[in-house]
Amino acid sequence: MTRFALTLEFDGGPYMGLQRQSHGPSVQQAVEDAAFAVTGERVIMYAAGRTDAGVHALGMRAHIEVEKPLAPFRLMEALNALLRPAPIAVLDCKVVTEDWHARFSCLGRAYIYRIANRRAPLTLERGKAWQVTKPLDADAMHRAAQALVGLHDFTTFRSTHCQSASPLKTLDRLAVRREGEMVLIETEARSFLHHQVRSMVGCLALVGMGRWSKEDVVAALAARKRQALGLNAPPDGLYFVRAIYPET
Amino acid sequence: MTRFALTLEFDGGPYMGLQRQSHGPSVQQAVEDAAFAVTGERVIMYAAGRTDAGVHALGMRAHIEVEKPLAPFRLMEALNALLRPAPIAVLDCKVVTEDWHARFSCLGRAYIYRIANRRAPLTLERGKAWQVTKPLDADAMHRAAQALVGLHDFTTFRSTHCQSASPLKTLDRLAVRREGEMVLIETEARSFLHHQVRSMVGCLALVGMGRWSKEDVVAALAARKRQALGLNAPPDGLYFVRAIYPET
Repeated sequence: MTRFALTLEFDGGPYMGLQRQSHGPSVQQAVEDAAFAVTGERVIMYAAGRTDAGVHALGMRAHIEVEKPLAPFRLMEALNALLRPAPIAVLDCKVVTEDWHARFSCLGRAYIYRIANRRAPLTLERGKAWQVTKPLDADAMHRAAQALVGLHDFTTFRSTHCQSASPLKTLDRLAVRREGEMVLIETEARSFLHHQVRSMVGCLALVGMGRWSKEDVVAALAARKRQALGLNAPPDGLYFVRAIYPET
Repeated sequence: MTRFALTLEFDGGPYMGLQRQSHGPSVQQAVEDAAFAVTGERVIMYAAGRTDAGVHALGMRAHIEVEKPLAPFRLMEALNALLRPAPIAVLDCKVVTEDWHARFSCLGRAYIYRIANRRAPLTLERGKAWQVTKPLDADAMHRAAQALVGLHDFTTFRSTHCQSASPLKTLDRLAVRREGEMVLIETEARSFLHHQVRSMVGCLALVGMGRWSKEDVVAALAARKRQALGLNAPPDGLYFVRAIYPET
């Protein structure tokens, strides 16, 4: 058996999420089906993150194990050929040792969230950003965001369907900046709770509109209950950017 | 009658082009139909450029004339509401005098062409960039591009369907740069011939791959015949960026 580490890019629009679902198409199913077509083997794909329906990836990491002897470049090319026309691409493929696990070896995850802050409907960015029509104060959002950085009980910012054993997480970075009409929110942590990024972005958007203060964010965090959440941002603007692993 | 200048953004993917066509949907038809729904008037839209099927716009300028008294903001909001779900948005709308003509008053046009220079199939950028898998030397492309700047007979870089009276055009700018895996080509002129940008980009891509030298570009230009063209780039990567008008 050879273990291959994959770097995946995908448009999450057509999928129920990364993880295999009984009720619709998933990125996992598409990659596993392509791998079956290449190898004749029913492989299982493990990924660094389990992104939701509609969430995109620029550099998701995953691994599969294959019996058939294949060079990494050949496997990547074959997977890309067989994935067409699905909007999923393998950007990189390399052999790793059996102690390298896309999910369990991962030391950090980074996401970016894109808000299109404009009045006109989206055209080229449709499904690729969250449109917020009220003007956003990105500096106020950045200042409020710093209240969430560090070790906290993120129960307020966690889906009621979250399966994580603990709501305690350390948020390493949450930075907001404006680039023209786009407001970009970058965040990094060892791991995130289900819906955590979208929930943080939703509340920061309320701050940007002037409806919430930084103190409201602090109070929502301290409340430690989902009902204290101001707003959950839609999946369209969310991108899994990269996963970090120990140097090997 | 009031004349309104519009700034349009659109995803050209679903359209046969900007201009009304008998054989399929156009941006012009979509905007005129929306204007009819708002005003009950059969307006005609005039635009700064007549982009081809699949070509996008970030800031196309156009104008329409309306009898019904309407504030520009109200008209813009109504057009945007009625254009949904078409991927066309009115970014700006203002009243102009009757001597302002979107096409004939226009002093300059700017386009950007986006090449995704990578091996993996496109996912999020599909239909929004031209994928070139061979590595491109953007600096060599930029140097070769300078041979096209200035007043030239652009017959080689002109579609056989071009309706322009003369193939003589002055190209003001043609600049190539790399940003990560994207190679961006920006160009400006008072006006362009039909397919001129895509034809220039196609030949510059040959230079980037090392298949053409700067001298080959010079020779193609000097040949003044369409058969000397190396390659015509697809519409997917082309964006009309802005139109320039005299200060009023």
